[in-house]
Amino acid sequence: MHSETLIIDTPGPGLHEISREVADLVSRSGVTEGLCSLFIQHTSASLVIQENADPSASRDLEEWFGRIAPENHSSYTHTAEGPDDMPSHLRSAVTQTSEQIPVAGGRLALGTWQGIFLFEHRRLPHRRKIIARVWS
Amino acid sequence: MHSETLIIDTPGPGLHEISREVADLVSRSGVTEGLCSLFIQHTSASLVIQENADPSASRDLEEWFGRIAPENHSSYTHTAEGPDDMPSHLRSAVTQTSEQIPVAGGRLALGTWQGIFLFEHRRLPHRRKIIARVWS
Amino acid sequence: MHSETLIIDTPGPGLHEISREVADLVSRSGVTEGLCSLFIQHTSASLVIQENADPSASRDLEEWFGRIAPENHSSYTHTAEGPDDMPSHLRSAVTQTSEQIPVAGGRLALGTWQGIFLFEHRRLPHRRKIIARVWS
Repeated sequence: MHSETLIIDTPGPGLHEISREVADLVSRSGVTEGLCSLFIQHTSASLVIQENADPSASRDLEEWFGRIAPENHSSYTHTAEGPDDMPSHLRSAVTQTSEQIPVAGGRLALGTWQGIFLFEHRRLPHRRKIIARVWS
Repeated sequence: MHSETLIIDTPGPGLHEISREVADLVSRSGVTEGLCSLFIQHTSASLVIQENADPSASRDLEEWFGRIAPENHSSYTHTAEGPDDMPSHLRSAVTQTSEQIPVAGGRLALGTWQGIFLFEHRRLPHRRKIIARVWS
Repeated sequence: MHSETLIIDTPGPGLHEISREVADLVSRSGVTEGLCSLFIQHTSASLVIQENADPSASRDLEEWFGRIAPENHSSYTHTAEGPDDMPSHLRSAVTQTSEQIPVAGGRLALGTWQGIFLFEHRRLPHRRKIIARVWS
């Protein structure tokens, strides 16, 4: 099993594509037929696999999360870190902390329109850690 | 590791149970104690494990997604493929692109009421690909 | 591959932390570098990785699910087991049936603020089964 940690710097909220970084680590693993597991070590940033062809899909997705898990809702009590604190946890809970992607022919077996994204929920820049495992 | 691709034809939107297809591939793998990983190569169809005893649970689930991620919301800009385009991505983002199910005694270790479903989000019939891996 | 079943008794609805139980089973597995997979065999309880430092985050999360997937919605038809029946399935569908957590240095590689939670959706006490696999 190949083990690696990815460090991703996020400039602010939204979907940041990391497909290339993950493809590179799969190459380094030397695995041709297997599985790649990603785990993000945070509760205010998450993982999501989404369409990567048209940026309007990512923007609409962020806008939608802003409506279903808004900032400044009167019911929130967990607000110590600001108005983006609790919405971050909500958005993390309904997206993914870990993703598993098959490896075939030495490459990530993503569909034609699929990209792997780090979904940053906090307003300020953050350094995020993703633990990767690739095995055959 | 046993590798296989499942091809599933969906007649239209909703939850389509694929438990039998997955059980068959676990049989073919010959694995008795291990794990089965499923990955759907699409961003407008997803995977979900749900109650499979009473069809009313699936219908209510679809109805609920129609309310929280409706068609024709005024905020959508990603509409090139029609009114079911953006809701498909939203529903995929909050359900699963991959599922991992344990194998025990040569069979899927699902709970009594659990079924594995392909959740089709598009209105028209589609051919969907699921990459499977089974290992011990 | 190390196989084990965790039995967790839940006293009622909400997030119940199981990080210690999972840490103990990773110790028993003897795996130092690998992956731990958890699968809950139910459709009315699920898994979620969330902040475990401040209980207000868990309370706000439960309150939010009470708003987006409420009891007693007029559209529900799947109500045979009571007002908490259908909301349980909805909350399960958008959180996790399985979680994969890396193991490093013989321990779960969780982030500083991450805890593993069983998210009980039913009002009455329940006995829940989680199938675990740990491998290197």
